[in-house]
Amino acid sequence: MSFLGKVFLVGAGPGAADLITVRGANLLAKADVVLHDALVEPEMLALCKKAKLIAVGKRCGKLSTSQRFINKRLVDAAHAYPIVVRLKGGDPMLFGRADEELAALEAAGISYEIVPGITSALAGAASIQRSLTLRGVARSIAFVTHAKASGETNNQHKNDFATPAADTLVYYMGRSHARWIANQLMQDGRPASTPVHLLESVSTPRERKWSMTLGALADEGACDTPAPAEWLSSDAPLLILIGEALAERASAQLNNGLQDGFVFADSRRSA
Amino acid sequence: MSFLGKVFLVGAGPGAADLITVRGANLLAKADVVLHDALVEPEMLALCKKAKLIAVGKRCGKLSTSQRFINKRLVDAAHAYPIVVRLKGGDPMLFGRADEELAALEAAGISYEIVPGITSALAGAASIQRSLTLRGVARSIAFVTHAKASGETNNQHKNDFATPAADTLVYYMGRSHARWIANQLMQDGRPASTPVHLLESVSTPRERKWSMTLGALADEGACDTPAPAEWLSSDAPLLILIGEALAERASAQLNNGLQDGFVFADSRRSA
Repeated sequence: MSFLGKVFLVGAGPGAADLITVRGANLLAKADVVLHDALVEPEMLALCKKAKLIAVGKRCGKLSTSQRFINKRLVDAAHAYPIVVRLKGGDPMLFGRADEELAALEAAGISYEIVPGITSALAGAASIQRSLTLRGVARSIAFVTHAKASGETNNQHKNDFATPAADTLVYYMGRSHARWIANQLMQDGRPASTPVHLLESVSTPRERKWSMTLGALADEGACDTPAPAEWLSSDAPLLILIGEALAERASAQLNNGLQDGFVFADSRRSA
Repeated sequence: MSFLGKVFLVGAGPGAADLITVRGANLLAKADVVLHDALVEPEMLALCKKAKLIAVGKRCGKLSTSQRFINKRLVDAAHAYPIVVRLKGGDPMLFGRADEELAALEAAGISYEIVPGITSALAGAASIQRSLTLRGVARSIAFVTHAKASGETNNQHKNDFATPAADTLVYYMGRSHARWIANQLMQDGRPASTPVHLLESVSTPRERKWSMTLGALADEGACDTPAPAEWLSSDAPLLILIGEALAERASAQLNNGLQDGFVFADSRRSA
């Protein structure tokens, strides 16, 4: 066991095979072994030309390979193969428990490199065509998860958690807490009219999205179609985007005509 | 002027040419014209095989092409070329004034698509090898800018701005406000010992980074080397990462031995 390969923690991005970085795609093509999350799409795994593929099955809210076992497989792989890729959904450094994997690699004296990935909030913003920040409206954005750590109870978890204050908010893995989140934000003073977008399986062929208000979300997803039960029942990853910047093309209203000859709906000019 | 091309708003990512997405690289290769920010690296522009390159020179804090003029050039390009790429540093939907460009395209009846990019906070986390979120320590992260809108005074700007509350904070374009930010966060209750990382020109050959505490940053960057003046004087884009999750491999201390046979420094076990 004196041989030591190198491990690359690579962000797969939101789902679509061509939303991985060029660096990540090159590493997949030359990897000897790829340990991948359950959420990685088959089209992306097709980029692995010669690698042995090992699903390590981490998936939010599901029974899955334990983190300890993933760490061990990663260390074992580096003892057997020159180029090891650990392919993680989204970006490795956001909600990915990368720190535990890196600690295990460091303890075993294995060298590694990290390749960032597109986090799904950014792919979600591209899909709904709304900027997450907006001059005069939103200078800050927070990414948040309410997903529980293993062994944590609902109450421990909620008490532990302060609602973040930022102009735009994106909740990852927020399906089961969606209504609670909306109520909390309204208690904290966000208007019921605040725009909300829900996105599922962003950037994949299964992508679905819904727009509503914070008040409607608090009212348990009272959007017209599809029925609330439809989005609440799915087990696909859900992203919740909340904030005034996400309103119908906000800058068209704010900028009083960006350019001569353009006509904008300009409801605030006379206000 | 009845011909209408399609516009692709593409995120260039943090700097390195291979940290653009595969989709973005493919679009650069087939684009007829590319309007790019001043911050985009020459190596990335080399991916444009046949496109006419137009620098539209937006750069934080510098005199640069006005947004209105950029919008006009974008609309003009779509009247002249089938495939127009607007290449923006980082991700188009974060701190990029994409909304104004999209409003202009919509007003002109031009169809568009958005391709996300790696925002520099994620490339920065990969570079310092610290997870931005951490089980038991950080469930939320905020990206913030204090960069002024044009015409805004320092005081208007500061009064207007509430410090965001999230476990980890990343400030974009925060160089000139670094000391003020640190003092503000300590007034808000963050310990002076909170880890801080400063990163410049992330992912490029010119990347530089410094680690310190919030207290040291408040004390006008009292890091040992290089001297404060060195990082304060540079005009490269600066990223400020702040939070407990960014401490020296935090999970090694928290998890009390992730795996049999691993030995961790475990200062909190006996506490």
